[in-house]
Amino acid sequence: MERSVQYKLLLEVKGTEIARTKAFDREKALIQAMRLFWRKGYAATSIEDLIKTLHLSRSSLYGTFGDKRTLFLEALKLYSERVISGTARTLNESPSPIDGIQKVFDDLVAGAGSETGALGCFMVNSVAELVPYDPDVTKIATTYADALQRLFTTVLTQARSQDMLTKKQTPEQLAAYVFNMIQGMRILIKSGATKEQVQAISAITLQSLQ
Amino acid sequence: MERSVQYKLLLEVKGTEIARTKAFDREKALIQAMRLFWRKGYAATSIEDLIKTLHLSRSSLYGTFGDKRTLFLEALKLYSERVISGTARTLNESPSPIDGIQKVFDDLVAGAGSETGALGCFMVNSVAELVPYDPDVTKIATTYADALQRLFTTVLTQARSQDMLTKKQTPEQLAAYVFNMIQGMRILIKSGATKEQVQAISAITLQSLQ
Repeated sequence: MERSVQYKLLLEVKGTEIARTKAFDREKALIQAMRLFWRKGYAATSIEDLIKTLHLSRSSLYGTFGDKRTLFLEALKLYSERVISGTARTLNESPSPIDGIQKVFDDLVAGAGSETGALGCFMVNSVAELVPYDPDVTKIATTYADALQRLFTTVLTQARSQDMLTKKQTPEQLAAYVFNMIQGMRILIKSGATKEQVQAISAITLQSLQ
Repeated sequence: MERSVQYKLLLEVKGTEIARTKAFDREKALIQAMRLFWRKGYAATSIEDLIKTLHLSRSSLYGTFGDKRTLFLEALKLYSERVISGTARTLNESPSPIDGIQKVFDDLVAGAGSETGALGCFMVNSVAELVPYDPDVTKIATTYADALQRLFTTVLTQARSQDMLTKKQTPEQLAAYVFNMIQGMRILIKSGATKEQVQAISAITLQSLQ
């Protein structure tokens, strides 16, 4: 191989590596920003907090993510995608539609009394803080609610076809009910509800679907 | 009547009137502060916002209510007392225990799509923003949750004695379930759920109590 070609290849490989490292660092920093906004809320998080937590200079922060609001919206979208894909995975991997919903509830109940549970849901927190005054947050929240309710509607429609579901309501209505239950639980757990209380709420909800 | 006695009486009456006016103004200002914190959240409300909304000078504001955090805690307590007494009144004035809970839900459903509905619940918003990092807010939220769940437990115990309640759970567990429903609805309505969606959720919840 000619030396110049070898050199070019080496440069290409190095370039890809640098790009990969940069992408990795960006995602890592975005996750750190998500955790910070989740814990502190939008208004209470300062640019100084972000600089300190993300280990970035002010100019790198603005260069990589734009201003505080742009970074917040990207962090909230990342959270939304993670919850939606995590819920889809849980539902898909479960032996039956109702087992899937039970598993989603069980994961919530497990958070009661823990530090993660006390953080609440980043989406619920952001809705409480910023909707309806921020139209971009409202849009992300609506997309999130629609996507999760669609997932629940799909499994509840399967449950209906297997004759495992009450016929008093449509799968769409029951999906809204399940989603409402989850949003409530995130607030209750944040307010300090015990595992037993949340467990009982989960049991009543599951029972009323059948 | 002697002139001096007359004068003393006049002074006393005037003093009472001034005290009454002052108390009235303080309560009016506190309600305005409550509405402002409710709408904007704690961190996003500045002392300047409070001065402007309450029509008070900076020194009057501090003299009457203390600092921003003290005023916020008093406003949140006022909200808590109002919701608890309003809920108690609704439940007491209803012809039957289940009718009472239905009326509480109906009032929530009526808020869907309205400006008040979009404000959400001041307690849910504050829990989302400040719990678990502010122990005073955590305490107010826990007291609020306990008081409302006790009210629901009382009417559900009445319903049980009238054989109008499912026997699968205790009235305490069903009260936690009803409370969870309400907290969830406040978030769902804030995120823009329609009246029909919230109505369906309310119907499923009531049905599962019986």
